[in-house]
Amino acid sequence: MNQTIETILNHRSIRKFKAEAITDEQVNTIIKAAQQASTSSNVMAYTIIGISDNALKEELYKVSGHSHVKNNAHLLIFCGDLHRINQLANADESVSIEDNLESTEQFIVATIDASLAAQNATIAAESMGLGICYIGSLRNDINRVNELLELPNHVIPLFGLVVGYPDHQPDIKPRLPLEAVYHQNKYLPFYEQQKHIEAYDHEMKQYYQTRSSNTKIDTWSDQMVRKFSQPTRMDVSPFVKQKGLNLK
Amino acid sequence: MNQTIETILNHRSIRKFKAEAITDEQVNTIIKAAQQASTSSNVMAYTIIGISDNALKEELYKVSGHSHVKNNAHLLIFCGDLHRINQLANADESVSIEDNLESTEQFIVATIDASLAAQNATIAAESMGLGICYIGSLRNDINRVNELLELPNHVIPLFGLVVGYPDHQPDIKPRLPLEAVYHQNKYLPFYEQQKHIEAYDHEMKQYYQTRSSNTKIDTWSDQMVRKFSQPTRMDVSPFVKQKGLNLK
Repeated sequence: MNQTIETILNHRSIRKFKAEAITDEQVNTIIKAAQQASTSSNVMAYTIIGISDNALKEELYKVSGHSHVKNNAHLLIFCGDLHRINQLANADESVSIEDNLESTEQFIVATIDASLAAQNATIAAESMGLGICYIGSLRNDINRVNELLELPNHVIPLFGLVVGYPDHQPDIKPRLPLEAVYHQNKYLPFYEQQKHIEAYDHEMKQYYQTRSSNTKIDTWSDQMVRKFSQPTRMDVSPFVKQKGLNLK
Repeated sequence: MNQTIETILNHRSIRKFKAEAITDEQVNTIIKAAQQASTSSNVMAYTIIGISDNALKEELYKVSGHSHVKNNAHLLIFCGDLHRINQLANADESVSIEDNLESTEQFIVATIDASLAAQNATIAAESMGLGICYIGSLRNDINRVNELLELPNHVIPLFGLVVGYPDHQPDIKPRLPLEAVYHQNKYLPFYEQQKHIEAYDHEMKQYYQTRSSNTKIDTWSDQMVRKFSQPTRMDVSPFVKQKGLNLK
């Protein structure tokens, strides 16, 4: 196993960071790594906003509710971005790009582009001994984040990424058995996935009972059903449409 | 610069592969790496389908139009997947998960989860000396891919990833200047991005004229406006909705 794969397999989300700062050079390397990810037809349909302003971090923390959103060495916000393309097109009165701009297809492209970039940023950071945590909870109040970052039309905040030197070492959370998520040539019917999910439920029950902090009695299946039975972030859809994306 | 960052910065999409096969162990490592990516609330809202059947590769090639979709050591299809969760919830008549299941929020989650996994697969493969190319062109006929892979409701094919030993070494394609995509504390207005885009247009013009194959005269801005002025894949939106996702 090479060092890169070791880094990847060693991933755990870090939610507590040392006070130690990271250098501009480190940030630069992380962003350069993000940019080198594949991008659909070279569109680069994303923007990364680095948050160094502490008052702003405080406001973003209020949206997220997680203290690591304010206590970290750096916070990056990954946005899907088709504004740049729209502005370029607006300069030429003879063309209309509305159909593509507002399509679910391009909304998917922007979401994928931003995510591939973020995962490159993640691996680059982790390879330097830094820890990261994705912050999906910025979508708890996506309108507020939009306002705080002064995002124009056709730009939406997708998630944050906090970075810093780890001040704890959580256990690595087990994943579903490979056979449940990796299928051969066609989709494996659910009833054939079930035994793998049961094995995972058993494993997670053990994991939750014996992990180094925050122990509880739970299974993955129970957790998922509970989670999904509570409607959450139903304002994301109207927000995205209001920004001019995912409309057709 | 460590080896992992070197691997990341050295990325170029590979579209021509040697006949050399990759081992089951290599595939296994790539999938394990994919699985170790972060996932929103541990939902793991994706499935990866490995295509080893040559007749199936041929059909997928017809959708994509790119010969590397059939000529490769392995082809992975990354799908957003909320079917698993729905089946778990269906077992309990007292709960309803419809709002979340059909929300744009969870559609975003599935797209991000699949993408983070794919980028881990990419970096793992590249760290082993393999090359990859993302295949967004499977969305040229997303209904056909859906049919070929026998995807149930709440599962959609997002993109493919071809893997193999590189049989060419394309130039690394320049990206937008860092300042255009990495902003500080708030969105950088387009007029302030413009000088970076102009610099990139100049760089890309040089790149296209002097790269080792497929030379042409073009700029990024012109390419983007041309690309976006042709409505494409407008059937993705109704397809996704018909699968029970992105509805509310």
